[in-house]
Amino acid sequence: MGLHGTWASPYSTRVKWALKLKGIPFQYIEEDLYNKSALLLRYNPMHKKIFIPVLIHGQRPVCEFMVIIEYLDEMWPQYPLLPIDPYERSVARFWVKFIEDKVGKSKILYFGIFNKSHEVQAKAMRDSLEMLSIREEHGPNKGKKFFGGDNINIADIAFGGLAHWMGVVEEVSGRKMFDAEKFPRLHAWMGNFKSLPLIAENLPDQGNLCRYLARQREKLFSSSTHK
Amino acid sequence: MGLHGTWASPYSTRVKWALKLKGIPFQYIEEDLYNKSALLLRYNPMHKKIFIPVLIHGQRPVCEFMVIIEYLDEMWPQYPLLPIDPYERSVARFWVKFIEDKVGKSKILYFGIFNKSHEVQAKAMRDSLEMLSIREEHGPNKGKKFFGGDNINIADIAFGGLAHWMGVVEEVSGRKMFDAEKFPRLHAWMGNFKSLPLIAENLPDQGNLCRYLARQREKLFSSSTHK
Repeated sequence: MGLHGTWASPYSTRVKWALKLKGIPFQYIEEDLYNKSALLLRYNPMHKKIFIPVLIHGQRPVCEFMVIIEYLDEMWPQYPLLPIDPYERSVARFWVKFIEDKVGKSKILYFGIFNKSHEVQAKAMRDSLEMLSIREEHGPNKGKKFFGGDNINIADIAFGGLAHWMGVVEEVSGRKMFDAEKFPRLHAWMGNFKSLPLIAENLPDQGNLCRYLARQREKLFSSSTHK
Repeated sequence: MGLHGTWASPYSTRVKWALKLKGIPFQYIEEDLYNKSALLLRYNPMHKKIFIPVLIHGQRPVCEFMVIIEYLDEMWPQYPLLPIDPYERSVARFWVKFIEDKVGKSKILYFGIFNKSHEVQAKAMRDSLEMLSIREEHGPNKGKKFFGGDNINIADIAFGGLAHWMGVVEEVSGRKMFDAEKFPRLHAWMGNFKSLPLIAENLPDQGNLCRYLARQREKLFSSSTHK
């Protein structure tokens, strides 16, 4: 089992967490996006687009974070990342989709907050705050540590792969979004989540991530156009 | 079982197809986006965002097209929309995600092709053609009628909810994308897909859809800003 990823990617990190939580041994291969490994190119399902992270299992690639998680959960049922009950599964999947859409379409992370356009920046800030307030309102149930209840599930993994990066984006941009007073349930959740050694040990170092994102931000600012 | 949807939505249509293929009886409730039903508002999982389509089952809402399909497949295993083999499931899910991302992020449909900006329009055209050529290259296996093999699966439903609308967008915009000579496998697929009575009978009428999208396009052109 191999996982091709990049250290600074929330998507790669989420898959690492899933593999670690399930106790599945794997070889991690750090990819350089500007000089991709022959193995990655060989297993990539398309010629025109490179997917990262990619899980290689039995010489076959599985791409896209949530697709990988579903695959892992079906192949290795230990430490289920999706609830057992079909309705509860739909709720967990809904929250993953919610987070994915916010990051993708609303560009609440890098591409929005780091954008040259003040209008785009302002919209990304508004969208981030709206997303956080919705997630706060639908936070972990009373007395529960995680969105998944007493154990981490896929909704925790998805939000964790956003919340940590959000803190770094705040530091680099100097703009506060994830305020502890405004979002007390989410901050309590964050404490519980990061207190798990498996999570903390597989989280990119905040200092390195800050330096990396600061460089990315400079690139975005110096490029003439960006989405 | 109730499905709240809008007739012109590819997402609502996909869920209708899934319910029909599985033979699950349901009540369809057409929603007016400007005057939503009390039932829809009551079952909506969030106050700030209205999801359509919504499946109401046992007085509980299930939102987001793919989440609904996964739920239906888990609750009603007849006519499986996802393959049985975990790896094949991951491949089908990957293609759904691919189509979803192209429609969402690359705006290959309305918001792109109908955009006032020539730059945005040109990008949407490029992205559409790229998407189609990738899907063509990875079309149904030789001798198979559908992406799912001999039966329709979720990858067919996802692409069908794009291809039909693409034809309408072409008609309204006067720009050809889905060319039969460039994409012979996809056109053969389209013929097979639409020849199924269950699909054809639950497809919005092309003329009505053209008129509807022409009005949407006018609205986009007359609004001062749009994404």
